[in-house]
Amino acid sequence: MRDLPDFSSDNHAGAHPAVLDALAAANAGSTHAYGDDPWTTRATRLICDLLGCDRPVYFVYGGTGANVLGLQAMTRPHHGIICPETAHIAVDECGAPERFTGCKLLTVPTPDGKLTVEMLDGFQQREQSQHWTLPHVVSISQQTECGTIYTPAEVRALADAAHDVGWLLHMDGARLANAAVSLDCSPLTFTTDAGVDVVSVGGTKNGMVFGEAVVFCRADLADEFPNVRKQGMQLASKMRFIAAQFEALLTQGLWQENARKANAMAQRLYESIQADPGLQFKWPFQGNALFPILSPESLRSLQDQFVFETWIPEESVARWMTSWATTEAEVDGFVEAIRRAL
Amino acid sequence: MRDLPDFSSDNHAGAHPAVLDALAAANAGSTHAYGDDPWTTRATRLICDLLGCDRPVYFVYGGTGANVLGLQAMTRPHHGIICPETAHIAVDECGAPERFTGCKLLTVPTPDGKLTVEMLDGFQQREQSQHWTLPHVVSISQQTECGTIYTPAEVRALADAAHDVGWLLHMDGARLANAAVSLDCSPLTFTTDAGVDVVSVGGTKNGMVFGEAVVFCRADLADEFPNVRKQGMQLASKMRFIAAQFEALLTQGLWQENARKANAMAQRLYESIQADPGLQFKWPFQGNALFPILSPESLRSLQDQFVFETWIPEESVARWMTSWATTEAEVDGFVEAIRRAL
Amino acid sequence: MRDLPDFSSDNHAGAHPAVLDALAAANAGSTHAYGDDPWTTRATRLICDLLGCDRPVYFVYGGTGANVLGLQAMTRPHHGIICPETAHIAVDECGAPERFTGCKLLTVPTPDGKLTVEMLDGFQQREQSQHWTLPHVVSISQQTECGTIYTPAEVRALADAAHDVGWLLHMDGARLANAAVSLDCSPLTFTTDAGVDVVSVGGTKNGMVFGEAVVFCRADLADEFPNVRKQGMQLASKMRFIAAQFEALLTQGLWQENARKANAMAQRLYESIQADPGLQFKWPFQGNALFPILSPESLRSLQDQFVFETWIPEESVARWMTSWATTEAEVDGFVEAIRRAL
Amino acid sequence: MRDLPDFSSDNHAGAHPAVLDALAAANAGSTHAYGDDPWTTRATRLICDLLGCDRPVYFVYGGTGANVLGLQAMTRPHHGIICPETAHIAVDECGAPERFTGCKLLTVPTPDGKLTVEMLDGFQQREQSQHWTLPHVVSISQQTECGTIYTPAEVRALADAAHDVGWLLHMDGARLANAAVSLDCSPLTFTTDAGVDVVSVGGTKNGMVFGEAVVFCRADLADEFPNVRKQGMQLASKMRFIAAQFEALLTQGLWQENARKANAMAQRLYESIQADPGLQFKWPFQGNALFPILSPESLRSLQDQFVFETWIPEESVARWMTSWATTEAEVDGFVEAIRRAL
Repeated sequence: MRDLPDFSSDNHAGAHPAVLDALAAANAGSTHAYGDDPWTTRATRLICDLLGCDRPVYFVYGGTGANVLGLQAMTRPHHGIICPETAHIAVDECGAPERFTGCKLLTVPTPDGKLTVEMLDGFQQREQSQHWTLPHVVSISQQTECGTIYTPAEVRALADAAHDVGWLLHMDGARLANAAVSLDCSPLTFTTDAGVDVVSVGGTKNGMVFGEAVVFCRADLADEFPNVRKQGMQLASKMRFIAAQFEALLTQGLWQENARKANAMAQRLYESIQADPGLQFKWPFQGNALFPILSPESLRSLQDQFVFETWIPEESVARWMTSWATTEAEVDGFVEAIRRAL
Repeated sequence: MRDLPDFSSDNHAGAHPAVLDALAAANAGSTHAYGDDPWTTRATRLICDLLGCDRPVYFVYGGTGANVLGLQAMTRPHHGIICPETAHIAVDECGAPERFTGCKLLTVPTPDGKLTVEMLDGFQQREQSQHWTLPHVVSISQQTECGTIYTPAEVRALADAAHDVGWLLHMDGARLANAAVSLDCSPLTFTTDAGVDVVSVGGTKNGMVFGEAVVFCRADLADEFPNVRKQGMQLASKMRFIAAQFEALLTQGLWQENARKANAMAQRLYESIQADPGLQFKWPFQGNALFPILSPESLRSLQDQFVFETWIPEESVARWMTSWATTEAEVDGFVEAIRRAL
Repeated sequence: MRDLPDFSSDNHAGAHPAVLDALAAANAGSTHAYGDDPWTTRATRLICDLLGCDRPVYFVYGGTGANVLGLQAMTRPHHGIICPETAHIAVDECGAPERFTGCKLLTVPTPDGKLTVEMLDGFQQREQSQHWTLPHVVSISQQTECGTIYTPAEVRALADAAHDVGWLLHMDGARLANAAVSLDCSPLTFTTDAGVDVVSVGGTKNGMVFGEAVVFCRADLADEFPNVRKQGMQLASKMRFIAAQFEALLTQGLWQENARKANAMAQRLYESIQADPGLQFKWPFQGNALFPILSPESLRSLQDQFVFETWIPEESVARWMTSWATTEAEVDGFVEAIRRAL
Repeated sequence: MRDLPDFSSDNHAGAHPAVLDALAAANAGSTHAYGDDPWTTRATRLICDLLGCDRPVYFVYGGTGANVLGLQAMTRPHHGIICPETAHIAVDECGAPERFTGCKLLTVPTPDGKLTVEMLDGFQQREQSQHWTLPHVVSISQQTECGTIYTPAEVRALADAAHDVGWLLHMDGARLANAAVSLDCSPLTFTTDAGVDVVSVGGTKNGMVFGEAVVFCRADLADEFPNVRKQGMQLASKMRFIAAQFEALLTQGLWQENARKANAMAQRLYESIQADPGLQFKWPFQGNALFPILSPESLRSLQDQFVFETWIPEESVARWMTSWATTEAEVDGFVEAIRRAL
């Protein structure tokens, strides 16, 4: 544990004070467990308003749980889930999606972490065979693990292409707020209105202690989902404490403020260094993450002074990520060090 | 949602204020995610001290997750898990243990929720067959779902019987603290020292917001468990917030104080009414739960004034449960109402 | 391996010579694999005719595979499957149904291996909870593992009760032929016409080398079943060799002849000994299996001379089972020995 | 169904007459089911002799079952299985390996379907993370799905590299016989003696009606495998009929004769056309399969006259495969047509 300025991940940050206050305020006597409480009712309504859906919303503990259970509700075990080969579900969830859904992930190479309609062609036009996994869901992340962001039109095109052949569209929205702020639009625009069927809505990276939500834009997919959630080990007994945090994020636009802060700090960092002729980026900068290609020496030297991740060791690509808690001073100190190191 | 005095469940209570304070205090800047933080290190040591084990301890989100992942570490999918037919894993986890471990639960009828060595005989002495599930783990709850408690000697006898035939002993300790207080001994006595191999240590019901621990008394069973936990969707990113709560429970004996309070309130309730000739109990009273057999009219009348669960509808058995937050006034009001209703 | 007369199981018998001849005759040059062959087309039509369904029929390797994949097509993993506690799927398939479907088996004690509508009441009337497995399928065996047989009216009553609450009815028909012969009716009467949704049709115990069929009386449940079968490891490459055997059984009524022979031999045995005052039977005799309650000495003495199974060791209950290959001489020799032993 | 000469797959062929004779000869009265019979004992010994292992050998129904259950015995669900991206387990088993083992397949691009030690480096040297699947098994096919064959030294190198880091080596030997004949050596040389831990030994493609074997070169991996096989729906009740076929293949060297015939016919085809300047092959010819790159017109024209598969539609690559039943006349007729088409 080093006490260095941290550009490693938005879950290295703590929780926003207003979120913690709401959590503490929810500690008011007894209430029913498992979601039958007023906080859950209110937070559900707020998320429905945000995403333009008419229920149902289900709170879960974590992001992997949100993705896996949403996908479980969309599939049967002989189905395949098409996703970029860089997807969080493909890379960083230790096989949980395959293990729990029984499905195979059909991964696609992409230049920037984003699927396109053309990439689905190979799967749509392939003759189906009983020997092969049947594609059934397309899963995208908004923002992606490469820091890139789909436009609402791009999401809509994928939704249409999927629906045309009877498939469904899933969105991993662990960083939904960063995408909305970057696009300067409501999340509604690139979820329900763009044809997404199920969304994981991130809370933790947006300033919560813990907690995510599975939102069903297409309500019939939620049939029996309470039992799916319980069997999936994601039913919180004292659920008011997740709901109260979401309420804090959603009542006064705190979700936007937090994401705006994170994105702005990444922007400040990017603008300060992007002109440097010695610096290339692996993927375009769009949200709250930069992926610089550094010399091994620069990388090592910077990691002695700051906490951040080596993203692709063999290409010497790093990830610099900001959060709601990143300060201008931290960014400025980092910029200075980067300039020295290059 | 009714604002009535609540004897329904120890997870209807909120979190203990000192736990919430610790959670807030942990919100101090950035730290590494996923357990690589000082709170996790300290809380791990405290649990090791309490249970007399030498690591490893793994924090997870919830009680079902703790049970399922502990059992997953102890089994292969063709194994069977012997448990009382009233066990939480058999009744109230929506099939999660079978789904995730692949194992069959081999349930045993019991008079009071407790397994005995004699009950294992049928499985131990049965000729093994390739057509049958191979028993491999015995799982007990301490305290049980019937409110009863194993003595250390009873646990030891089960452990010996299991180990003699190459099986393992698992303990669901969601209410470990209540059992320890009732037995007036250290949890060490009826876990590590009694031969238990893996324990789920409950935090939520003992006054936390969320969070449980999987403790490996037999360390080699924890090989690769970090990956089991991640695949099992139970790896918290901001893990310091679970660890800090456990630290609060364990530093000043708060875990005991909370359990003592819950048990004392149940005791106060029991002593006030047990002499009533019209009142029978389904199972012996030992911890923080009473299971009265009421007339359907009494049951209905009391549920108009208090929140509690009907446990066995067809026998008109209720469950009255206390928590760290139950007050003497609440108990006394309940006693009065019970007397009226009988 | 002892060369003793064998009343152990109908899969201790070999294959009927006409079945073997058909298998050999199918060895005629090349044909497409995986079911795209004329034998499969013809055998499918014959089974459809027999069970009054309009496709689809799927051949699989074995009986456990037939049951598990049929149930898989009827369920999602958070569902429960209600069955007698003596059911083959509950007792003798090493947890394969739970492992593959993810479902919990909700077992019911029965006096004779048969479910009744009353036994479903507890599940139908129970308030549903997110903590509990959701019942979705009722599974019965025809004939049962206790040797008993449902009348068409009994099956219809179960189907109606299941359908009334949105559930489905599954039939394990490993010994469908024995039941049909005993009832003196077409299998149509107690399958499609009685409301059964999916049936496992047994071939092996009826005189085949290997091979069973999954028949969908309700066709929409078979959507994507070819992929379910492949993922379930039950797709035979040289499928013509399963189909040709079924064709042999079904063209000249051989399936009936074989079952009639098995049942007649069991009848001969039963009639010769049932009057003996020292002999009780555990369950009523109806098909091709008897379950006598013997003294431990009689049991041991008879097992020195004949091959048969001890069914319930603690009650000294044996199983005597006949097959299409059992001869009158074998039965008569057995009767004589039984008389001596009693 | 077209009655055209068939170069599509070695499972389009029927069964060798001597195999069918043995199957019929095994139909001699009653015998114990599930492998407790003399045929199984004898065939087990013959396979042990062939592969130089000292038991255990387990017969199963099909090739997917053999692969999946062998892998199941080698893994826990959070493990990864490294294999070529062209592997049968990765492409043609409808996700059965992932579904049953819970493991993720870690696929590797290869030029010719063969893994090399260098390809393992990326996995061996990668820092392990709780977020990632833990590699534990390397799985290769002998012969590969690209028709290529590992030398014993190549297998040994992979085994050493795997064992050095605590992993295991699995071999899909559906076409083991073709590889042995092509290498002109005993299968022992490239299985047990080369360090392979578990092998699927193919029967069906070598001239059987159905049936494969899972062979444990490393015996301790077979602990409790009978239950794994039953739970995996691969336990044949009348197992003598699988064993008798293997006995036929293994007693007089029929397995070699069949493979030699298949390879010789492929060789005859290859030699007759390989000099044609207009003909390229996708992968080197080594066993019983050719992968010619044809013009779309040639491909279409030939498929009007012969049955064979288009292997890579977008590259116009076909697969021509021979079997034990392919005749010289069929090859010569095919050669003539190919020459005309080119």
